[in-house]
Amino acid sequence: MTSMTPWFYRSRDVYRHWAPVFKIISILWVVLALFMLVPLVLLLIENDPDAMAFGISVLIILGAAALIWLLTYRVSLELKPWQMFILTAASWVSISGFASLPLVLGAPQLTLTNAVFESVSAITTTGSTILVGIEHFSDGLKLWRGLMQWIGGIGIIVMGIAILPFLKVGGMRLFHTESSDWSDKVMPRTGGIAKATLTIYVSLTLIASVSYWFGGMTPLDAIVHGMSSLSTGGFANSDASFGAYADRPWLLWMASLFMLSGALPFVLYIRFIRGSGSALWQDQQVRGLLKLLLVAIVILSAWRVTHGSAPFEAVTHVTFNIVSVVTTTGYASDDYTLWGALPVVAFFYLTFIGGCSGSTSGGMKIFRFQIATLMLRNQLRYLIHANGIFTTRYNQQPVTNDISRSVVAFSFFFFITIAVLALCLSALGLDLVTALSGAATAVTNVGPGLGDIIGPAGNFAPLPDAAKWLLCIGMLMGRLEILTVVVLMTPMFWRR
Amino acid sequence: MTSMTPWFYRSRDVYRHWAPVFKIISILWVVLALFMLVPLVLLLIENDPDAMAFGISVLIILGAAALIWLLTYRVSLELKPWQMFILTAASWVSISGFASLPLVLGAPQLTLTNAVFESVSAITTTGSTILVGIEHFSDGLKLWRGLMQWIGGIGIIVMGIAILPFLKVGGMRLFHTESSDWSDKVMPRTGGIAKATLTIYVSLTLIASVSYWFGGMTPLDAIVHGMSSLSTGGFANSDASFGAYADRPWLLWMASLFMLSGALPFVLYIRFIRGSGSALWQDQQVRGLLKLLLVAIVILSAWRVTHGSAPFEAVTHVTFNIVSVVTTTGYASDDYTLWGALPVVAFFYLTFIGGCSGSTSGGMKIFRFQIATLMLRNQLRYLIHANGIFTTRYNQQPVTNDISRSVVAFSFFFFITIAVLALCLSALGLDLVTALSGAATAVTNVGPGLGDIIGPAGNFAPLPDAAKWLLCIGMLMGRLEILTVVVLMTPMFWRR
Repeated sequence: MTSMTPWFYRSRDVYRHWAPVFKIISILWVVLALFMLVPLVLLLIENDPDAMAFGISVLIILGAAALIWLLTYRVSLELKPWQMFILTAASWVSISGFASLPLVLGAPQLTLTNAVFESVSAITTTGSTILVGIEHFSDGLKLWRGLMQWIGGIGIIVMGIAILPFLKVGGMRLFHTESSDWSDKVMPRTGGIAKATLTIYVSLTLIASVSYWFGGMTPLDAIVHGMSSLSTGGFANSDASFGAYADRPWLLWMASLFMLSGALPFVLYIRFIRGSGSALWQDQQVRGLLKLLLVAIVILSAWRVTHGSAPFEAVTHVTFNIVSVVTTTGYASDDYTLWGALPVVAFFYLTFIGGCSGSTSGGMKIFRFQIATLMLRNQLRYLIHANGIFTTRYNQQPVTNDISRSVVAFSFFFFITIAVLALCLSALGLDLVTALSGAATAVTNVGPGLGDIIGPAGNFAPLPDAAKWLLCIGMLMGRLEILTVVVLMTPMFWRR
Repeated sequence: MTSMTPWFYRSRDVYRHWAPVFKIISILWVVLALFMLVPLVLLLIENDPDAMAFGISVLIILGAAALIWLLTYRVSLELKPWQMFILTAASWVSISGFASLPLVLGAPQLTLTNAVFESVSAITTTGSTILVGIEHFSDGLKLWRGLMQWIGGIGIIVMGIAILPFLKVGGMRLFHTESSDWSDKVMPRTGGIAKATLTIYVSLTLIASVSYWFGGMTPLDAIVHGMSSLSTGGFANSDASFGAYADRPWLLWMASLFMLSGALPFVLYIRFIRGSGSALWQDQQVRGLLKLLLVAIVILSAWRVTHGSAPFEAVTHVTFNIVSVVTTTGYASDDYTLWGALPVVAFFYLTFIGGCSGSTSGGMKIFRFQIATLMLRNQLRYLIHANGIFTTRYNQQPVTNDISRSVVAFSFFFFITIAVLALCLSALGLDLVTALSGAATAVTNVGPGLGDIIGPAGNFAPLPDAAKWLLCIGMLMGRLEILTVVVLMTPMFWRR
């Protein structure tokens, strides 16, 4: 194929290019359908008519996968780098779409827009919701909301460990391991790490769920909250979010711990278990995250106490909500937008931060702020000592020009995406605070925004449909680390 | 002096280091005092008691300058680069301080905080005001407000042409000319360019003032608006800002033209006059600014017309207010925050842009957005063709790594400054929109913010004193291109 011949005229090439991509994606669809069997079985046991919705959904998805498999059964699974970009984007989009089927077909009968918004929000582990009266939904649907987030969580860990460093997106090359050093055409040797990661993810989720159960939650609530904590997704089984447990401080502290667990680099857990006891505490990213949380908690707790709150209550709620926003979980135990002017601005800023790379959390990620700080310090040195040569290390690795440039490009595209999204939202009539915080909370995959409508005490349901679709794009772009999607929007990519 | 001996123990060194800096600054003070003679003479002619305030101010300033001169009369004026940083910051701070004297001593008897806020806002050509009932002030004070902005305007042009490129701040090395290529210890050979720039600045101001006068303004209003247009300062002689002339569209169009003139690179006017007729239109920065204005004007005019505004009126007011904000002038002809959701978000974004480098305008400046765009395009290319080598040119000059890094550092520090300032303002109780837009409008030297208090129909007077001092710091940091000040805050600089 020469660059002079548009690709769509060459059907054999099209097939050769797209077949392996969709063959791999169809495997993921099958996995999704298998997960759907869990709420299906539960609903069958409970004799709930929602079972039908899940049954039909499973059949549709398996049918689609079978069709792809039939069309491509002789295609090998080898992928070139540019196909990885398409694979990454197409798998998240298609899985979000298929995951919404039970919501369209199920008892609450959501509109297509609302169903897709809810499932994109779930799969990207954002946690913004359009559901009102969640308490009254079938157990199967509640479980499915938790499962979608949980699937999205493991998806992003695997993507962060195995795919993004390879694609050189956003400076994540810093975290490349043996499993992200692929040759051009070989499938990843991620077997070992993927298995260990999955084991840890399952174990931590089980620990969280059992703890919540001992803490007083019903088994279903415990499982759903366990899944939405570890995936830093933030779906709850109540319109009041975690506010339903506001009077049980021990649950808030447990949840803070489990949200934090979801926001740490999962590779470090593996090293930790394999005997490097200090792996977690020696990591610059983890230390940075903990320091940031500590500073924010101290300042806002002091603010709350000086504004009349009881110390223990203040620290509990401040810690919970700050950890929730910084880990991009998005639970709320209280309407923190009523805490005063400083907390509102602080929560707006904290929305952007995010957890560690290689975790389930979103946002810009701690390491990018740290790399940026190192770069800025070097630049100041350079202004003062014009002829000095300065090198920078992060986690004992040299910060190359390559990585700096990637981090800068990511940061700029991140803000541009949020700015453009907010402008589009305002064109639909959303006010400045709703538009800006809505765009930010979508792209960072946090969940709640600011203002009366989409704030921690609000709900995304009243937004116009067009705004919901725009936010879906924002959530997916954020989850895919922006550049993976931006690359697909350039004519250069398709001319390649 | 070794790095082991703190500088303040060595008084002879202190003298040697600081004397030449303050000797040069004292010359600037004398110039300031000479400018004060203009309102003084006007007030004497009008037999206004405010003359006393200006007389005393002149004496204080000349006394301070004489004292410095006495203490340093044998010191030569040679400066090292690091002394230039101190000179730059100290001259803007001290001139802002001295310029406030007539406001403290004059008839309205402003508090020290209000007087300093007004003069910092004037000298930095920001144009935020704390004055209410401006119409009732003496002609001398009105004239002084205009003069302060006009002085600040020429100050920033000279700084942008002669000093900042030399200090390598914020990528302005792109615009270095023969006059910014100094040896380490020689005073600038800026004579020729400075004289030509001053001539052009005076001429354009005269043209603007005469045009306004023909357009129907009183002579004093015409002069003050002429000065505050060309300096992109934005002080007006009425609480309604330029809204006092909202019913005279021709004045709005004239003002749009003159604000734009102040936001173009003055070096290009020199080339234009010296015969290079296309100098202005061939410049990438100018073309970028005009394109941006055109796009913004078309979009917001369309919004206004579809929301019921008459076409000519819509285009007139949209053009005026967009040009006002993008050139960082800050006049308002209308409360554009009442135009709807999209215009509010658009004006918030436009606050950051700014005009051209080497003009009187503030903000991030067009060229930094253009350089950033070039960098991002290269990064995308790199993601697609991993082994390509990409070079970038801007205005026929190669964009070196050095310049890219400077632009990135500037952008990051710019946003950090605004974010920190907004957080501090919120700690004083300012709401999110007031804190964010107030911090942004101060650092970008635009003038009006958003929200009920400091919006285009508001006034900065109701803010707490502490907020006014913080905004003063923000205005000065913005005017000094951030890094000039940040460098002074590092221990590294003082250990040097």
